[in-house]
Amino acid sequence: MKVHGDVLSIATQRVLTCLYEKELDFELVPVDIRTGAHKKQPFISLNPFGQVPAFEEGDMTLFESRAINLHIAHAYKDKGTQLIYDGKKMAIALVWMDVEAHQFDPAATKLGFELVVKPMIGGMVDAESVHENEAKLVQVLDIYEVRLAQSKYLGGDDFTLVDLHHLPCIHRLMGSQVKKLFDSRPHVNAWCADILARPAWLKVLAMQANH
Amino acid sequence: MKVHGDVLSIATQRVLTCLYEKELDFELVPVDIRTGAHKKQPFISLNPFGQVPAFEEGDMTLFESRAINLHIAHAYKDKGTQLIYDGKKMAIALVWMDVEAHQFDPAATKLGFELVVKPMIGGMVDAESVHENEAKLVQVLDIYEVRLAQSKYLGGDDFTLVDLHHLPCIHRLMGSQVKKLFDSRPHVNAWCADILARPAWLKVLAMQANH
Repeated sequence: MKVHGDVLSIATQRVLTCLYEKELDFELVPVDIRTGAHKKQPFISLNPFGQVPAFEEGDMTLFESRAINLHIAHAYKDKGTQLIYDGKKMAIALVWMDVEAHQFDPAATKLGFELVVKPMIGGMVDAESVHENEAKLVQVLDIYEVRLAQSKYLGGDDFTLVDLHHLPCIHRLMGSQVKKLFDSRPHVNAWCADILARPAWLKVLAMQANH
Repeated sequence: MKVHGDVLSIATQRVLTCLYEKELDFELVPVDIRTGAHKKQPFISLNPFGQVPAFEEGDMTLFESRAINLHIAHAYKDKGTQLIYDGKKMAIALVWMDVEAHQFDPAATKLGFELVVKPMIGGMVDAESVHENEAKLVQVLDIYEVRLAQSKYLGGDDFTLVDLHHLPCIHRLMGSQVKKLFDSRPHVNAWCADILARPAWLKVLAMQANH
């Protein structure tokens, strides 16, 4: 199987983390997003929306990082870490997977862009966007704090794709002023420390460091 | 099973359509979004994010409309219309489900708000938002036109949750200037006509009309 992507991309990191958790062999085919390779051929034949990563397995091509991970977690259920479950546990995990995608990610991605990416590339920080998205993130983390007081992980008592999908954005925000929003909530803080220490995630960080 | 929601809400309509496709009996517990009932108790005990709908089945409570529908489609696979499949077909459908959620829906929801909801409630239309989101919708529909020339439905040759999830937003936009963007693309136009005529969707429209 092949991942066409860029180790600097959050969505690519999400899929790489899943592959390491599942202990699967894969090839990373580099797509340099800094030169816009994801907006041109040959990449847009893999994903017409021009976003990394794309995933190839036999004659099947997938894109959208969370859909790729759901496929991997289903198709290789018995390999490596079990990342999804069945029945009611799956239904609850699906809810919190959509919470990550629709509540957490929009605010977290914008904050990561303003507070981490822009300072690196010399862009002007949009203070209004930071203010607005910090307020949104606070609301989400307040709900996570209540949730994580009830169960060790967001999807339930086991680490699942739900937690995994948060990893790249949380790691990025840990290098910004927003870190304090995570640190000041005891259950959120313990959850972050736990998931950020997973060997699969450390392998993705090592890939980035070697980049 | 109970749906706590409002027939005027797009996300509630998404779940109601799924329940009608699956020919399941359910009770709709009204939550009046015009009076802000979704932001208060008792509703926020069902969904702490304060968004309709919430879904109750036995001792399980779910929210996020697409997650609810995935659960229903899995749990009642053999009832009514089959809305998801297995293996590779499922993987492809998951990709296009995320395309709906992350590419189509953000632009379509904003356009529906500006061009349909605001004129009803007497709000000022934000011309810049309309312009920006029309451009985004055009990009998405161009890709849909190519996709729908290859397969009858977005997820493949069968109607699935992918198509169903588009229904409420498309219906809303059909009453606006944006209709021409759908009409002018032959495969998109035929797909819209097909899915908008589904009996399950017509039942949801009848519920709205009786509201």
